[in-house]
Formats: sequence, structure tokens, C-alpha cells
Amino acid sequence: MTKKVTVLGSTGSIGTQTLDVIANDRDQYEIEGLAAGNNVSLLIEQAKQFHPTYVCVASKEAAEEVKLHLPAGTKVYYGEQGLIEIAAAGQSDMVVTAIVGSRGLGATLAAIRAGKAVGLANKETLVTAGHLVMSLAQERGVAVLPIDSEHSAIFQCLNGESRSSVKRITLTASGGSFRDRTREELANVTVEQALKHPNWSMGAKITIDSATMANKGLEVIEARWLYDIDYDDIGVVIHPESIIHSYVEFEDHSVMAQLGLPDMRVPIQYALTYPARRPTPTGRLDLVKQGTLHFREMDEQRYPMMKLAYAAGRAAGTATTVFNAANEVAVARFLRGEIGFLDIERVVESVLEKHTTISNPDEQTIAETDQWARQQSEVV
Amino acid sequence: MTKKVTVLGSTGSIGTQTLDVIANDRDQYEIEGLAAGNNVSLLIEQAKQFHPTYVCVASKEAAEEVKLHLPAGTKVYYGEQGLIEIAAAGQSDMVVTAIVGSRGLGATLAAIRAGKAVGLANKETLVTAGHLVMSLAQERGVAVLPIDSEHSAIFQCLNGESRSSVKRITLTASGGSFRDRTREELANVTVEQALKHPNWSMGAKITIDSATMANKGLEVIEARWLYDIDYDDIGVVIHPESIIHSYVEFEDHSVMAQLGLPDMRVPIQYALTYPARRPTPTGRLDLVKQGTLHFREMDEQRYPMMKLAYAAGRAAGTATTVFNAANEVAVARFLRGEIGFLDIERVVESVLEKHTTISNPDEQTIAETDQWARQQSEVV
Repeated sequence: MTKKVTVLGSTGSIGTQTLDVIANDRDQYEIEGLAAGNNVSLLIEQAKQFHPTYVCVASKEAAEEVKLHLPAGTKVYYGEQGLIEIAAAGQSDMVVTAIVGSRGLGATLAAIRAGKAVGLANKETLVTAGHLVMSLAQERGVAVLPIDSEHSAIFQCLNGESRSSVKRITLTASGGSFRDRTREELANVTVEQALKHPNWSMGAKITIDSATMANKGLEVIEARWLYDIDYDDIGVVIHPESIIHSYVEFEDHSVMAQLGLPDMRVPIQYALTYPARRPTPTGRLDLVKQGTLHFREMDEQRYPMMKLAYAAGRAAGTATTVFNAANEVAVARFLRGEIGFLDIERVVESVLEKHTTISNPDEQTIAETDQWARQQSEVV
Repeated sequence: MTKKVTVLGSTGSIGTQTLDVIANDRDQYEIEGLAAGNNVSLLIEQAKQFHPTYVCVASKEAAEEVKLHLPAGTKVYYGEQGLIEIAAAGQSDMVVTAIVGSRGLGATLAAIRAGKAVGLANKETLVTAGHLVMSLAQERGVAVLPIDSEHSAIFQCLNGESRSSVKRITLTASGGSFRDRTREELANVTVEQALKHPNWSMGAKITIDSATMANKGLEVIEARWLYDIDYDDIGVVIHPESIIHSYVEFEDHSVMAQLGLPDMRVPIQYALTYPARRPTPTGRLDLVKQGTLHFREMDEQRYPMMKLAYAAGRAAGTATTVFNAANEVAVARFLRGEIGFLDIERVVESVLEKHTTISNPDEQTIAETDQWARQQSEVV
């Protein structure tokens, strides 16, 4: 039986790789919906290849243009509301949320409310509203399957295990594009330098987040919600080769790890095929060829963003929304050349300092806090 | 509910570590039987600590001596026949077969026939009669749980996975006490040098087997039976640190690995508690402290015993019985100072060459082949 899939953010890095996975195993899937932002020409191309019933684009104008190129029966949504509608539309078994940033929240909640399993690549959803998303998923009996390589690794390590026997999970971090530079050397790095990730080919936002370690901070908070585990029991180690994608220590001190070449198509496919596995056209790991794996301590002096993420996570409530929103704006400002690389941390820290945490916020409070944090982050 | 356990080979390396695991989590277990060879004083000490209903020793004389020190109700078996009787006696949920060498076969078969789960540390059992043991276990619906660290690692990597999605398993090998010496340097090594294993504290036979790589050869053959996998899909890599205990590659190129400090008590306990895990007093792995993991190719020129093991495994039938028996005798001769280190390989190779493989042998044929190979191995 084919699996019906809707991909939100189909023209981005995770979205195109999701469609690559599906194209490589075509008989197994049916694409029901595709949502993109402004890359209308790629969306049209994807729609011609995968024949979705539903598509969604950013604006009314884009929607009109798209309609000209697609079969008459195709339903075309647009805008924020359209994204929420396509997330809930049709009979999809899984909605892959590959949108970057906190915009993914409404669509993810809509998919869960409609009883669809979620392949979660939008990590900000859990960071900003983990308590809402996970309780709604539990209420609806819906699976939230991680697509991040680290969380997919943890998820695979927990296969067939009792959650109560987990002692600690450890996320590995490549260290990003500047891992071999001192803090002093970071003051004047360029956007171009920051975008050169040593191992992974990813979008701009996440590549910068890797260099600041904000990405790993977001993953720590995400892990807290995905695996219902205390921050004290979530560790991070620097592993420059990105071969061990993460690992779990159990109470008997046995450690299970998931390894592979850095290729996002493996965790993407696992979310799609779970609990089964399927062949892929990805490369095979050869540890002899690899030769050596290194592990270094995560130094919070070198990467203050880690400290901020744990602090925001422990404060809980709206603090993680602020961490995420401030980081999104600061990274955008860095990419626009408005601020330096080290200013990203400074912006996040100072906006977090100004914020008074509200516990157990609802969607409205999260949205307001998100807006407030974004405004603050533009000016500090 | 406590688990009733019988330990065969209780005074050896695996046996004493099994009892250490049980002593550390006393409420969980009841020791029903203890079988030893000639170390009568240690057996008496163990019996006083664990109060078994059944014990077994090597000879009638030893049995008489043991009786003087144990409560009147204790049933004392002796000899080969006694070992088979204690393996089947009572209500044990699990029989740990920690006997070294092919003597373990009869006892293992007896335990399975009596419907008891087997914690298998005696690898020669599967090497010499894998087809008999596994088909009997399947027939009786009895679990055969590996205690070897490598096979326990594979077993843990297969948790919650479908066997049909396994592409390849890889056993890691420390390389043994002589891993940094060339073949030329091996001609005159002493018994004392050979007994210094870099990572694991084990018995003499298995320590020599690690140095010749016969141990890994036996494990490859054992893996073929435990996991019903082709020899083409079983690999070996040298991993000097013995931190990754083995790993499984699935068809999606995801690799699951089990890691930990080298401590046999972890795989021993896992066989006892499976599918649950329990706390242990063993050390925790710290990959940052470890710093680096290395992987090198298994070189069959450097370790001809690997080549012999694969050839015997592929020949199947009685060939693996000959490989195992010839190796046992050759190691014993080396330990007695009768032959040099490189003669161990020479003995195994020449006895294998003399042998005409008999397919699908029964217990009697295996026993006869075993005897024949032992006689040959004493004189070549």
C-alpha cells in the first residue's frame, strides 16, 4: 500500500531531499500536498513530477501563477492560512514539516488535529511550543517522528527499549564551520565563511546555527520534548566527523549509537518508512575508510549559545520561544550584513535578559511573545 | 519475581563475573545450580554464598569432598554426565553455559531439551554444532541469548528491528596482545607475552585466541548461526580501543552500534535481564575522555586464522568442528610450551587440509570428528 504524504516546505533543503527519497522509491508513496514559499517555479516543476492534489504558495499572486501550470483539479492554497489548510487537507498518512522557523507551528498543530502523523524537520515547533504539540499528539494518538539526524538517531537507539531504562542521551555536534577557530577569531568572520559547513549540506539558517551552536541548543530543547527527558540527562559532545549521529546510554551502561555518512535522506526516509526500513541510494559507511572518530568536550565558554539554550530550556514557558525568535532575527540580521557573527549571541542573550518568562503559555501567548522578541531583536 | 539461574563453569572468568552480576542485584535472582571443574574450593565458597540446590564437579572424589561442606539437601553431580544432568535439572529460567571448549555442547543441548533459555558464553557450542543447537532451540521455542560482548552488541542492535532489513553485521576485534607486531616478530613470542590482552581481562584460552584472531573466527561462525546470516554479510574490523563492541548495517545504510567500556558484566547481565535492563556497578563510557576511536582493516595475511575460519564456515558440516578442535589443542600445546605461537595456525591449517568434510553431522559424528581432529592436532 502506498503512503500518502504532504510536504510543507517542499522547495527547501529538507523538502527537496524528501522528494528525492520519494522519487527513489516511487511505488511506495503518493504525494498528496506540496507547500512552498516564494520558489514558484520549483514548486511547479515538483507538482508536474509528483501530481499533488493540493499545493500551497506564499501569496495570492503566486497562487494565480501556479494555477496556470497545473491541472484544473489541483486545489491551490496560499498564505499562512493556506499552509494550515493544506496541513489538514486530504488523507495524508504523514505531513512532513520542513518549513524553517516558527511559522511551522500552526501547520504542525493543524496536521496533528487532523490526525496525521508528523515528520518533524521544523525544530522550532517543539522549541517554541513543545508542551502544546506533544500533549496534542498524545491526545490524538498521533506519532511525531523526528527528521533531524540527531533525533532520528536517538529515536533509532530507543527501538525496542523501555524508556524507563534510559539514563542519558547525547547529541553529537560537528562544531560547525568555525569549530577550529578561537572566540577571538570569530569577531570579523564573514557570512560566506559561516555558510561553509564542513560535513552537512543544509540551508543558510541552520548552517549559521551550526556555527553558533544555536542549532544544537534548539536540538537539546527539542529532545527534551520528543523524549520527555530532563535537561540534566541531555548531553552534547563535539564530534567533528558527524559519523555517530547521537547516542543513548541505558541504566546498564550499555550505549546504543546510530551511525552513517552525513546524508539527511537517511533520517528523512526513516521517518517515512518507520518502523520498516527500505533500500536507499545513499552512500555506505565504511569505518575502515573513515579510520578515526574524534570526540571533544562541548565548551560553553567557546559556545555561549549552548548555555543560553539550556538556561532557556530550564526556565521553560515562553523562554524558549524568546531564545528561538531572537536567534532567528539575529541570524537574519547577520546574513543581511547588519551585525557581526558574535552579535548573534549578544542579541539572544540581551533579549532573554529583558524577558519575564510566562509559564505554560497558550498559542496566543506564544505568538505575542514571539512578536515581542522579534521586535526587540531587531534593535538591540 | 526472581529469575532462577544455573551457571555451568561457575569458577571460570565468565562464571565468576556472572555470579558478580547476580550478587550485585541479589533480589532479582535465585541460583539453582553451579557447575565447576577442578576448582573445588572456589565452588564451595560460591555454594556457601548462593545456596544452590544442585552443584556439579569434575570427578567423584571432588564430589565427595564438596558434600562435606554443603547442606545435606544439596544434590551433587559429577563428571560429563553430571554436567548434562545439572543443565537439565530443576526449574531454572536460564542456564549460563560458561564452560570453555567443546565440552559445553552436550550440556547446552540438554538445557535446551529441558526448555531452559541459554545464556551462551561457550562459543564452541555453536561453532561445532550450530545447526543442531539452533534447530533444537527453535523446535523447543527456547531463547539462545549471547553473552559474548560482540554478539550481545549485535543482539542489542537488532532490538525492535526486522531481520530482513539487515544488510551486514560487523564484529570489532581489538587485534589482541600482538596487534602492533609484524608476522616476523611473532615467531618467538612467549606464552607470557601472549597472555597480556590490551583491553579485556579473560581466560587464557580466549586471550591466546584473541592474539591469533581465532577468537574472532569462532565469533564469525557463531554469528552465522545466532543471526542466520551469510558469511558474505559478516565483516570484521580491527578497533583497538574495544569501545564499539560490534555493529549492524541496515538496508537504508543506517548503522546501529553498541558501545561501552570493555566489561563482560554488561553483556552477561543483558542476557540475564533481557528484554529489560538493570543498573550495574560497571563504569560509564565517556567518549570525550576516550577522545579517539580507531578502525583498521582486518588483514588476512597478518591474521591467517581469519581466512581459515571463513573457509571452514563456508565448508560447513564438520569443518568448523575441526577448526575448533584443532585450535583448542594447538593453543593448549602452545600454553604447555610445546609449540611456537605461529605453529597454532600451522596445526589448524594442516588438520583442516587432512579432513574431508561431512555435511549436516549428528552429535555422534561431531564427537568422532572432534576426537579425530584432537588426535591429529597433537602430532602435526
